[in-house]
Amino acid sequence: MDLLKKMILDKGHVIDENILKVDSFINHQVDSKLMEEIGLEFYNYFKKVNITKVFTIESSGIAPALMTSYNLNVPMIILKKQTSSILNDDIYQTQVKSFTKNTTYNLTLSKEYISKDDQILIIDDFLANGEAAKGAIELVENAGAKVVGIGIVIEKSFQPGRKFLDDLGYDVYSLARIKSLKENKIKFVD
Amino acid sequence: MDLLKKMILDKGHVIDENILKVDSFINHQVDSKLMEEIGLEFYNYFKKVNITKVFTIESSGIAPALMTSYNLNVPMIILKKQTSSILNDDIYQTQVKSFTKNTTYNLTLSKEYISKDDQILIIDDFLANGEAAKGAIELVENAGAKVVGIGIVIEKSFQPGRKFLDDLGYDVYSLARIKSLKENKIKFVD
Repeated sequence: MDLLKKMILDKGHVIDENILKVDSFINHQVDSKLMEEIGLEFYNYFKKVNITKVFTIESSGIAPALMTSYNLNVPMIILKKQTSSILNDDIYQTQVKSFTKNTTYNLTLSKEYISKDDQILIIDDFLANGEAAKGAIELVENAGAKVVGIGIVIEKSFQPGRKFLDDLGYDVYSLARIKSLKENKIKFVD
Repeated sequence: MDLLKKMILDKGHVIDENILKVDSFINHQVDSKLMEEIGLEFYNYFKKVNITKVFTIESSGIAPALMTSYNLNVPMIILKKQTSSILNDDIYQTQVKSFTKNTTYNLTLSKEYISKDDQILIIDDFLANGEAAKGAIELVENAGAKVVGIGIVIEKSFQPGRKFLDDLGYDVYSLARIKSLKENKIKFVD
């Protein structure tokens, strides 16, 4: 997605060779017109598939996921990050380790908002090691439902998440694929 | 806003006389068409005012705030809830106590995304005791900028937040004003 790549080059900050900061248009300040374009782009790619719900992980995934779910005309479900593990028959929960932030959280989904017939599109802002996506997939599959696509705004292709999801056979569509952040330079795949 | 009130009556759950659960269309599962209607409603009410940015508090405020900022054609800023206090010249931070959840967090804003000329519209999903709104106002005013409006999806009018904001002279627009949740019944103001 050219507009997104241009904004990453113009406004992104390389913190180190693993971390790209996009606080000025995606994570802290959010460009709502860009989010609408992102929602349309995911809609155009995934509209061929029967999707019943869009799942995302709080909180940076909410903006792109909302615009995607709006265009697909299906509900969005926000998977919650709970600090503590909850023993409760009404929820699905799985532990996720964030390598980037060096934290662990319990990704949580109320059983009320998923059924075995659901066909889920997962949308998130970043794909790095794939831990968050892996957690979301686990919750969906715990419910007997199916992940039919994964849409990522920015993929760090030099980290293992993309290959992991490809190897499992998921249809992953990333709008910007970053090959390297070395020497303070942003290089895209292709 | 009639559509919202209807959904609250149809799908809201009264947990006790202080807590209304709207997990099925606002907080956990999100109705994106409703969010678009909410964004248009806030746009129509606040378009008379010069607004440069929409502020919200992660994470349930993001969906209505994004749709509002999209319609107003201004950026959205997500105020972050940090668990720990950060001493850093690049950020504004204030402590907020959530009575509903019995937690305390540090509401955080990067100085980069506000200037003294900004005219801020604050959007949030709930107004109860007003602690979150109070924190957001404090961050805006620390920067020398101005809060020109506050848009709330659901106001619990029987709790002190609305009166507190009215007394300070803010223009508060709440889409659904709840008078009482007593005896397991949802009653609206008027």
